Amino acid sequence: MSLKKRYLMTPGPTPVPSEVLLKTAEPIIHHRTPEFEAAIKSAEKNLKYVFETTGDVLLFASSGTGAMEGAIVNCFCAGDTVIVTRNGKFGDRQKLICQTYGLNVIDLEYEWYERVSVDDVARELEAHPECRGVIVTQSETSSGVLNPVREIADLLRDRPDTIIIVDSITGIGAVECKTDEWGLDVVMTGSQKGLMLPPGLSAVAVSEKAWRAVERSTIPKFYFDWKKHRKALKESMTPYTPAVTLVLGLNVALDLMREEGIENVIARHALLAEATRSGVEALGLKLFAPPEGRGSAVTPVWSPEGIPSGQIVKIMKNDYGVTITNGQDFYKDKIFRIGHLGYFGEFDIITTLAALEMALVRLGYDFEQGAGVRAAEQVFIERGNK
Amino acid sequence: MSLKKRYLMTPGPTPVPSEVLLKTAEPIIHHRTPEFEAAIKSAEKNLKYVFETTGDVLLFASSGTGAMEGAIVNCFCAGDTVIVTRNGKFGDRQKLICQTYGLNVIDLEYEWYERVSVDDVARELEAHPECRGVIVTQSETSSGVLNPVREIADLLRDRPDTIIIVDSITGIGAVECKTDEWGLDVVMTGSQKGLMLPPGLSAVAVSEKAWRAVERSTIPKFYFDWKKHRKALKESMTPYTPAVTLVLGLNVALDLMREEGIENVIARHALLAEATRSGVEALGLKLFAPPEGRGSAVTPVWSPEGIPSGQIVKIMKNDYGVTITNGQDFYKDKIFRIGHLGYFGEFDIITTLAALEMALVRLGYDFEQGAGVRAAEQVFIERGNK
Repeated sequence: MSLKKRYLMTPGPTPVPSEVLLKTAEPIIHHRTPEFEAAIKSAEKNLKYVFETTGDVLLFASSGTGAMEGAIVNCFCAGDTVIVTRNGKFGDRQKLICQTYGLNVIDLEYEWYERVSVDDVARELEAHPECRGVIVTQSETSSGVLNPVREIADLLRDRPDTIIIVDSITGIGAVECKTDEWGLDVVMTGSQKGLMLPPGLSAVAVSEKAWRAVERSTIPKFYFDWKKHRKALKESMTPYTPAVTLVLGLNVALDLMREEGIENVIARHALLAEATRSGVEALGLKLFAPPEGRGSAVTPVWSPEGIPSGQIVKIMKNDYGVTITNGQDFYKDKIFRIGHLGYFGEFDIITTLAALEMALVRLGYDFEQGAGVRAAEQVFIERGNK
Repeated sequence: MSLKKRYLMTPGPTPVPSEVLLKTAEPIIHHRTPEFEAAIKSAEKNLKYVFETTGDVLLFASSGTGAMEGAIVNCFCAGDTVIVTRNGKFGDRQKLICQTYGLNVIDLEYEWYERVSVDDVARELEAHPECRGVIVTQSETSSGVLNPVREIADLLRDRPDTIIIVDSITGIGAVECKTDEWGLDVVMTGSQKGLMLPPGLSAVAVSEKAWRAVERSTIPKFYFDWKKHRKALKESMTPYTPAVTLVLGLNVALDLMREEGIENVIARHALLAEATRSGVEALGLKLFAPPEGRGSAVTPVWSPEGIPSGQIVKIMKNDYGVTITNGQDFYKDKIFRIGHLGYFGEFDIITTLAALEMALVRLGYDFEQGAGVRAAEQVFIERGNK
C-alpha cells in the first residue's frame, strides 16, 4: 500500500501547526515556577487580544463542555430564568445543562438551518423582566449557522441584571467576536478550534457585569469555580494543576495569531468559507445554513438525493485520506460538514473539494467534474491576496 | 552561560518519557474515528491492569481535582454523611469539596506527619450507621504519608451502603493499590503522576458498589457525569471531546508500564524511595512522614534548623538545574519534598542527593559531604538489581 497523506478537515479537533505540537513535546516543566507563570501571563495577554477584551479570560483544563457548564454554575442560581436559544446540537446541550442545574428555561428552538431570531429574544425578554441570562451559540458547529450575538447583546444594554453567555467555541478565531465592543458578558472557546491546539483546554472571557452575576450565584461549584480561578490568575497561576504542555503550546499558537493579526485571521476564514461555499454550489449541491447566517468555521452541505452523506465521508477518508464529518443527530447521513477552522489555507479547501468531487464521481452523482475546484480558485483569484 | 541540564524531581508534574511526548506531538486525529476508538479501548484495558480492577475505569479531560469533585457529585446526595480523613493539603481539599456540595462531614483531622488511624474510622463508622462514604488520600502528596486504605476498606465489607473513595493521585503506579482485591470502590489518579504523562487527564475506577451509590445520587452534574461517561465508553468514546493527544500519549506510557509489569513498577518506586530516605538520613536530616506510613511517591524532609527549605529549593534549581519542591501551607519553608514518581531511575536519586549536598554545603549546614550519595548507592547495591 502506498503512503497516504492525511488531511483533517473537521470543525474540531482541527489541524495543529507542527511548531505548536513540538512545543507540547518539550520536556515538561513544573507549573509553580517563574517560567510557567510567564507562560500563563503571556497566554492571558494574548487571549485578551483574541477575545478583544480588557476583562478577565480564565483558562481551564477541560473540553468546551466543561467551560459551558462552568458558565451556568458560576452565573446563576437554581430557579433563575434564562432564555436558551438553540438551533443545533450545542444549543441543545446548553438547555440540558441549564435544566440539570434547576434553571427555568425559556426555550427558543429553531430548525438547525435557521438563525436565532433577535425579535423572538426581544419579545421573551420583555415578557420576562426576571430573566437573568440569554444563552446563544455564536457559531453552531452542528449546522454552520452564525447567530446574531451582537444584536442580542444590544437588547441587554439597559438590563443590568441580564447577561449574555456566548458559546463561541467554534467562533473565536474564525468569525468576528468583539467581546467588549459588543457588550458580551461571557464568551468561551475550546483549544481544539480556532486556537489551533489539541483538545483539553478551554478559555472563558468574563465581563464586569458577569462578575456581578457570579457574586449572587448559589449553585455549588469547585473545579470550575471562577472566583478561585480569577484569584489564582492574579498571581499568574491556576488553582489546580493546569494542562502544562497545552498551555505552552497555546502560547506558540497565540503568537502565530498575533503575528497574523486577528482581523486577518478572521478575513482568511471568511475567504476560505466563501471559496468552500462557491465550490460546493458549483457542484450543484445545496448549502445547509441560511444565506443570512453562514459562519466561517464549518460549511455543512446537503448530501445529494439518494446518497447518504456517510458514504461520501467514508470514501473521502478511506480512499483519499481526507476527513470531513457527517451530520449529527437528526441530520446524520443527510448533511456532511467541511471544517475550515484554525490552521487552514487555500489549498486545504482545494484538496477537500477535489476529494469531494472524486467521491461524488464514485458514488454516481451527476455533475460537472472539476467545477468545484474551479469555483474555489476563482474566489481566491478575485478576493484573495493577489 | 554554559548549558544547564534540567531535572524535574517533583511529585507532579513528573518527567515524561520522550517517546510519550513525541506521540503527543504527532499530527492530530479526529476523536470519532476507528483509530481513536482503538486508542480508548487500549487505554481502558491497560488502565484496568494498572488499577488492578475488572470494573470500569473512566477517563476525563481534567486535573485530579476535577476527578475528586466528580467522585463526590456522582456518589452522594446533599445531606449525606461522609467521613473525610485528612492529614495533608489534599485531604483538606476533599473536605472543602464535600462541604461545597452540602455533605455532612465527619472530620478526622491529623497532623500532616501522622497516618490516618483505622481505629478512628472504625469508631466513627460504628457511631454513624448512616455514613455513606469514607474518603481517604492513599498517598498524601503534601506530606508523603501513605494511609492504610486497605485496612479502612476492610471495615466496609459488610456495609453495602458505605463506599470508600480513594484519592490515589500520587499512589497509582507508585505504591500497591489493588482496587478489586482490597475492595476499593472509587480510585482516582491524574495523568501527570505515576502515569508518566503531562497534566490534563484524570482516570477514575468505579466498583459495582459505587455504581449503586451513583444510582441514588441527586447532586446535579454534567461534565463529570459518570453515567454518561460509562455509556460512551461502551462504544469506546467519551461524551465530550477528549484530550486526544494526551490519550494517545497515555497508550504509549501504559505500554511501558505493562512491559515493566505493575509489580516491578511498584518495586522500583519502593527501591528509589528507600534509597532517597537512606540518603537524606545519612546527611543527618529528618524524614517528615512516620516510619509506619511512608509512601514511595515523594519523600518530604525537615529542613535543617535555621535554613528555610525555600533556600535549598532555590539553590538546587537555579544553580544546579534540579527542581524539588517546598512544603505547602503551614510547612512552607519548614520541609522540602523530593519527588520520585513515574519515570525515575537510580541515577535520578543520585543526582538529587548530590544537588542537595551541594546546596547544603553552600548554606553552611554541617554534615559529612558525600554521605547521602554513598548511602543511596549502598541501597542500590544491596537491594537493587545486581
